[in-house]
Amino acid sequence: MPDSTVLVLGSDPPPKLDRLTGRARVVTAEPATLAALLPTADVLLAWDFTSDAIRDAWPVRGPRPGWVHTASAGVDRLLCPALVADDTVVTNARGVFEQPIAEYVAGLVLAMAKDFHGSWERQRRRHWEHRDTRRLAGTHAVVVGSGPIGRAVGTTLKALGVTVELVGRRERTGDPQFGTVRAAEALRPLLGGADWVVCAAPLTDATRGLFGPEAFAAMRPGCRFVNVGRGPLVDEDALVAALRSGRLAGAALDVFQQEPLPPDSPLWQTPGLFVSPHMSGDTLGWREVLAAQFEENFDRWAAGEPLHNVVDKRLGYVPVR
Amino acid sequence: MPDSTVLVLGSDPPPKLDRLTGRARVVTAEPATLAALLPTADVLLAWDFTSDAIRDAWPVRGPRPGWVHTASAGVDRLLCPALVADDTVVTNARGVFEQPIAEYVAGLVLAMAKDFHGSWERQRRRHWEHRDTRRLAGTHAVVVGSGPIGRAVGTTLKALGVTVELVGRRERTGDPQFGTVRAAEALRPLLGGADWVVCAAPLTDATRGLFGPEAFAAMRPGCRFVNVGRGPLVDEDALVAALRSGRLAGAALDVFQQEPLPPDSPLWQTPGLFVSPHMSGDTLGWREVLAAQFEENFDRWAAGEPLHNVVDKRLGYVPVR
Repeated sequence: MPDSTVLVLGSDPPPKLDRLTGRARVVTAEPATLAALLPTADVLLAWDFTSDAIRDAWPVRGPRPGWVHTASAGVDRLLCPALVADDTVVTNARGVFEQPIAEYVAGLVLAMAKDFHGSWERQRRRHWEHRDTRRLAGTHAVVVGSGPIGRAVGTTLKALGVTVELVGRRERTGDPQFGTVRAAEALRPLLGGADWVVCAAPLTDATRGLFGPEAFAAMRPGCRFVNVGRGPLVDEDALVAALRSGRLAGAALDVFQQEPLPPDSPLWQTPGLFVSPHMSGDTLGWREVLAAQFEENFDRWAAGEPLHNVVDKRLGYVPVR
Repeated sequence: MPDSTVLVLGSDPPPKLDRLTGRARVVTAEPATLAALLPTADVLLAWDFTSDAIRDAWPVRGPRPGWVHTASAGVDRLLCPALVADDTVVTNARGVFEQPIAEYVAGLVLAMAKDFHGSWERQRRRHWEHRDTRRLAGTHAVVVGSGPIGRAVGTTLKALGVTVELVGRRERTGDPQFGTVRAAEALRPLLGGADWVVCAAPLTDATRGLFGPEAFAAMRPGCRFVNVGRGPLVDEDALVAALRSGRLAGAALDVFQQEPLPPDSPLWQTPGLFVSPHMSGDTLGWREVLAAQFEENFDRWAAGEPLHNVVDKRLGYVPVR
């Protein structure tokens, strides 16, 4: 008989959870049924990490899962004061998305430097027009977010000859790879020196709206901006204004205040803005990798061992050791 | 009084050639006037490297420039049997284009791996559709061309986690960076193992048409192809067929049999093919860099010192030391 119940939130179920066979009963919940099923669950797997159902379900009165794992790097969708306050352990998918996102950002930055979009537009019109484009090497990037994703982005950009300044919550000196990691309070003056600003920060109360009118005004004309963190880190109206005024020479958003981005959003057709549908970290086989990562943590949970990727619920992310 | 005459071929003249002031008379030639002016020239600068005027002007009877410098990496446009046979020294722009082209190719490869084109198409239609894309790290590239451009491309792809096999004219073992550089005769079997095939070879009698039906048939389904060498290295009809049949999952051409690409070329609208107007190496300030490179070589010429970047006219490129 299975010892425990794993409740999986998500209508698009994960690949077969092989390691759980015979050891756990796997029950699938929809957002609408989650609250009713929670008391029966030992473990909750947030396979659908775009739903607000978990934060809506907390506080849970009576029995509830002791462990919630989310198949995402960001935990902003599920953390709520009640979940932060209780003793439920939250883990995330740290380790899965870093390298794919770093490649994606490197591709975006190169595509902007080389004006691939401009060439595509001309190709559609069968129009041959040579332009001079930018060297990437020797330019300077400010990467906001000093967790694993920001670090991977920074490492990849450095491999392409970009100088990189990493910005985290607090200043840290002596980072073996990035020297001094700057504090978020010091961000404003750093923006004026950047050719590229990449947002790879977690969404927390401290980072919400980080990129608003003041931040864009602090960037130097011709700067380009990328957001692969979470949509609410960016004031989208301010971004559009910065693009329209020419302050920003280009931008790429993979995440949005509202996802899917509504068809009537002005973002779709803002000149210089590249829109992609929250896919920067999702490379072929990612669901299998996410499932395997959960299974491995389940083994640890079943054995009473400490879990990997435990989120500091007050900070809103897994602290870097 | 100036000692010598530098004839500049090109209607779009180079930035002011400061170092020549007082030491050389600079005369500009159009393709139509080149032959008449050649006997007056000590040095010929092929600033317009897209013209056939130089190959058409040779053999030159009587006085002629002892040195021809081309503001390009490839010398295929000017070399002809008569120029190969006489004692005129030919130099090229080696050193200017390598790193920009390597960045461009890295960008193309990432753009294909991450399907930026697919996202752009959907953006135009305001259509949100998540897709899984490819990891670049761990894939395998065959880079054809073991000169400075091929090496720079290979180095940059390696920095992104791609394994790289370099293919040159002859096999060379013990390359510090690439191990064994393969011989062009061994290319065919290598193609079957490649996720990416990048052509960065010079155009010579030995390489013309290198990528024809057999080469594309030897690639594995799903392979992607990039040409930043010269158009005639590729059989364009065979490339289109390989894309249409699905043998190739994508391709990017920066160079073409005919440039500018005519508006009625089928290449403009071949699905999966990205067309850019021969600009992979041309980053902001490239004309100034080219002019400075010529001036530096002119200093050496005026001082009777050996020139940099002397082309082996029989091989058709500057041999790697």
